[in-house]
Amino acid sequence: MPSIVDRSPVVIAVSSAGKAPVLARIIRAKLETIIPSAYGTLAEIAGEYRQRVKDRFSKIKDRRAFWETTFSGVIAEKVFSGRIAEAKADIEKQLKDLVELSMGEVYLVGAGPGDPDLLTFKALRLIQQADVVLYDRLVSKGVMELVRRDSELIYVGKKGGSDESTRQIDINDQLVELAKSGKRVCRLKGGDPFIFGRGGEEIETLSENGIPFQVVPGVTAASGCSSYAGIPLTHRDYSQSCRFVTAHLKNGTSNLPWKELVVEQQTIVFYMALSGANHICEQLIAHGMRKEMPIAIIEKGTMPEQKVYITTLLALPDLLIKENIHAPTLMIVGEIVKLNEKLNWYGNLKN
Amino acid sequence: MPSIVDRSPVVIAVSSAGKAPVLARIIRAKLETIIPSAYGTLAEIAGEYRQRVKDRFSKIKDRRAFWETTFSGVIAEKVFSGRIAEAKADIEKQLKDLVELSMGEVYLVGAGPGDPDLLTFKALRLIQQADVVLYDRLVSKGVMELVRRDSELIYVGKKGGSDESTRQIDINDQLVELAKSGKRVCRLKGGDPFIFGRGGEEIETLSENGIPFQVVPGVTAASGCSSYAGIPLTHRDYSQSCRFVTAHLKNGTSNLPWKELVVEQQTIVFYMALSGANHICEQLIAHGMRKEMPIAIIEKGTMPEQKVYITTLLALPDLLIKENIHAPTLMIVGEIVKLNEKLNWYGNLKN
Repeated sequence: MPSIVDRSPVVIAVSSAGKAPVLARIIRAKLETIIPSAYGTLAEIAGEYRQRVKDRFSKIKDRRAFWETTFSGVIAEKVFSGRIAEAKADIEKQLKDLVELSMGEVYLVGAGPGDPDLLTFKALRLIQQADVVLYDRLVSKGVMELVRRDSELIYVGKKGGSDESTRQIDINDQLVELAKSGKRVCRLKGGDPFIFGRGGEEIETLSENGIPFQVVPGVTAASGCSSYAGIPLTHRDYSQSCRFVTAHLKNGTSNLPWKELVVEQQTIVFYMALSGANHICEQLIAHGMRKEMPIAIIEKGTMPEQKVYITTLLALPDLLIKENIHAPTLMIVGEIVKLNEKLNWYGNLKN
Repeated sequence: MPSIVDRSPVVIAVSSAGKAPVLARIIRAKLETIIPSAYGTLAEIAGEYRQRVKDRFSKIKDRRAFWETTFSGVIAEKVFSGRIAEAKADIEKQLKDLVELSMGEVYLVGAGPGDPDLLTFKALRLIQQADVVLYDRLVSKGVMELVRRDSELIYVGKKGGSDESTRQIDINDQLVELAKSGKRVCRLKGGDPFIFGRGGEEIETLSENGIPFQVVPGVTAASGCSSYAGIPLTHRDYSQSCRFVTAHLKNGTSNLPWKELVVEQQTIVFYMALSGANHICEQLIAHGMRKEMPIAIIEKGTMPEQKVYITTLLALPDLLIKENIHAPTLMIVGEIVKLNEKLNWYGNLKN
């Protein structure tokens, strides 16, 4: 694998003022591969256009604006995803008409399950180049600390009961307005934006308004919590499929298809399950699931404060009375939960 | 957010030999936040123990070995995940008895859906510190390029038909042996290791043999493909849940619970669906799903070569004859597939 030094005109130096030479060396080695190799390609393409950009923009200030847009917006993203011809066509367009640059764009980004170490490279890059970040309660503090210091933060989460929630339609409209005003907007969502994130609704409005957007998948809470709790979601002996449902209740009830959920060899993952947990257990038993079916409640999954509670459908109500469990939580139901006893590696297990 | 310069004794300098100053500046800004902030904590902890390490190991070579282990193994990972007290206890143990250092460990790592930009920070870090990497066909070329040049690569994927596959039990045993010989072993899996990855089976064997291991979740193929194809997996109007099944056939048949799959308001994602695609469509229709139900086949999802084919249950066999589709593929079935028309942003759409 070529190092960054071989493939691009960018050289990285790391020093530690003599205090931790081994640490400095380890970090340097990591950095060399952390930089997307496509930065080399980007630098090459920049070289091809350097003279023409100089001819086109006589002021240094304008040239800088041109390169900033090229290196951190839609064009750079096209290069990073291998669409070189499209990227070059965009550069040509911008050389002809700078007006294009004034349209913003929206990044719908999955922030993963909580541990900032589970963010993807693409997510971090887009978070960092955004001028405005819209976020809600499910984005962890650790991830929010990675937002650029000078970008605007807008909280669009629920402020209390569901009546007070910022209405979805307002968020959709806000995204359109911000992008139209030329901002690069990051809509940051806990987990994956297309699994219970209502991300689809937000980009539908963008699409209707002709706003460019990208969607960045994230590690969904089910994957994050199952890995850190040592509970596989599928396993040859226990479960050949997994089903993700949301248990968020309206007015204390839910209209989940209970009968469909009570089937063999399936792992069921309930997102946002805490307030409805008792109701879920009651209904699953009422629809024929055995009372001793193991369930796991994972509190603050993937974070240092993570707690995993293992119980059964029948015993859950007592557990909830005894323990003081807080959201965010994820609930896993199925025989497969038993594997936690053997596969739990992250610690902090509570029974 | 404090920059790395504020919070640790590590300073980063990026230069571009004057050739691309804007690019160098953008990269430098990114690097400052890419380094886990916990490296600062790690450097502080190192400071606390520096004198004791000097006293304990008189030879520079031994001190270097001590710090290398501390900065890139289990101890560093504990610091990164906030478990400082545990990390310090481990350092104390190592100061007393270096024998502990000779036990290897296994990282079960999700490599994500293909685009190396969708790798998580934790995944890359563990890939890079492994001495040996076991991988299979579902790990993309782009991800494999990020493996350290001097680490050993072992291919454990299928070599042809399923009879020739490296038997799962052999992989399990190999992981145990390598770790026992003191190696840091990365078991790299496409997507997420706990969703159709048989990761559970592999770490069961590790657990039985007392080998330390970690599990790193990844962006599962369903999330990656749905995001890059513009097909949400859940949506208020179309689907309140999603179900992941694998359609890998043994002897041309499968024992999927067809009746369970034919329900309203659900998105079904079939992993590894290509060889069984015709059979799946036949069976879904035979069990009552309407023939016009939209389906998407996503080929090489999230990669520059990605192609998205939109069709219906009824028309799929013709599509497969007409188009030359290759694995890896993912199939999404449900009304929600229609949204692709509006939400497709990544291009390369084929009808």
